[in-house]
Amino acid sequence: MHDVKAVLFDVFGTVVDWRSSLIEDLQAFGASRGIVADWPVLVDAWRGAYRPSMDRVRKAELPWTGLDDLHRASLAELVARFGIAGLSEAELDRINLFWHRLRPWPDSIAGLARLRRRFIVATLSNGNVALQVDLAKSAGLPWDMIFASDMFRHYKPDTEFYLCACALLRLPPGQAMLAAAHNDDLRAAQALGLRTAFIPRPTEYGTAQARDLAPDGAWDVTVASVVELADRMGA
Amino acid sequence: MHDVKAVLFDVFGTVVDWRSSLIEDLQAFGASRGIVADWPVLVDAWRGAYRPSMDRVRKAELPWTGLDDLHRASLAELVARFGIAGLSEAELDRINLFWHRLRPWPDSIAGLARLRRRFIVATLSNGNVALQVDLAKSAGLPWDMIFASDMFRHYKPDTEFYLCACALLRLPPGQAMLAAAHNDDLRAAQALGLRTAFIPRPTEYGTAQARDLAPDGAWDVTVASVVELADRMGA
Repeated sequence: MHDVKAVLFDVFGTVVDWRSSLIEDLQAFGASRGIVADWPVLVDAWRGAYRPSMDRVRKAELPWTGLDDLHRASLAELVARFGIAGLSEAELDRINLFWHRLRPWPDSIAGLARLRRRFIVATLSNGNVALQVDLAKSAGLPWDMIFASDMFRHYKPDTEFYLCACALLRLPPGQAMLAAAHNDDLRAAQALGLRTAFIPRPTEYGTAQARDLAPDGAWDVTVASVVELADRMGA
Repeated sequence: MHDVKAVLFDVFGTVVDWRSSLIEDLQAFGASRGIVADWPVLVDAWRGAYRPSMDRVRKAELPWTGLDDLHRASLAELVARFGIAGLSEAELDRINLFWHRLRPWPDSIAGLARLRRRFIVATLSNGNVALQVDLAKSAGLPWDMIFASDMFRHYKPDTEFYLCACALLRLPPGQAMLAAAHNDDLRAAQALGLRTAFIPRPTEYGTAQARDLAPDGAWDVTVASVVELADRMGA
């Protein structure tokens, strides 16, 4: 642990609260357009399409497609499935950009700012560069570097993504740590030699969340917040 | 110009004063080790090796080699040529890292901070990711994104570098601007449709500098500093 030079963060769910942010923005949008819909259920379905859509790219059933475009295609399907009529293409584009302005968890910015004094603090996120740049500006996330799926044309948990990020930092994997709210992400990173920090976010999927409530691997650190991670890392 | 969403900066010479920084660091190193050498001449020769070494990669005479490694190889040759004996490999590694802590020109940080309020502000530099991350942390450069040669395995002026950066930002080239102290860089960018800002740095190569003192193309903007660029861009 004393060798760690860089802390790499998963973003959706670990640093930002995608679910509450999207529900809030869609409710405001629906109210402004006079559209009644079960927005929380639609948001959960939108996120539910996330992994399957990336897996189609990972298995080469689709050519490389960035996350913005996967989100946009899923949204079009869901709007039809939920019977929401009358939205223009421009309105769907605008809704898709709600992912570019998600809000951070209350501890994220303070914790990242502290970690950054001692470590390289970067993203390792399936979001594409444009999404992540907008999100960092909007939320004030103080990254030293953004590592994005479309830089490598690989989605996590492809090994290339983790290893290419370490290689670009000129660090052996053991000098990088992945911080994530998701056990599967940490498992992939640990298998490659990265250090691991689990930050459970027990309401990421809402109050009935059943997954990722506790560590299910031998992670180096389990903490309740990014601030607590800074404490543990001596930053 | 009203369409510009991102301002991309060349870094060496445009944002940081590599020559004064390296001379200062090498003089301090030489004094600490009791080594007498003409450090300014060595620094100029080191930078002189920059373009030819990248061109060997660009022409595929060398496999992909990152800038840190090109710098390191040039340094080893120069130390021998200058008759500087007794340096260990670790000392040469340490000198090579002087590129990671170059100092900014006096106007750089204030100008970037202003531009960043209105635009995406990113690098477009032949430096590798690790070098640029260290440099940004050391100098306090407030980038929204770092675009580095080793992300694309292309050095400027390869067209791929400019176009891949725009593509990752999901911007057509006409919505990106390159800011640089070097006419040849701007020429390559303009040919691809990017907007151009020339920021001459008349002492980049020392007081006898003969190149890049004036615009030699129809650049969109010519300004004396990054702060003046912020003025002109309404930021």
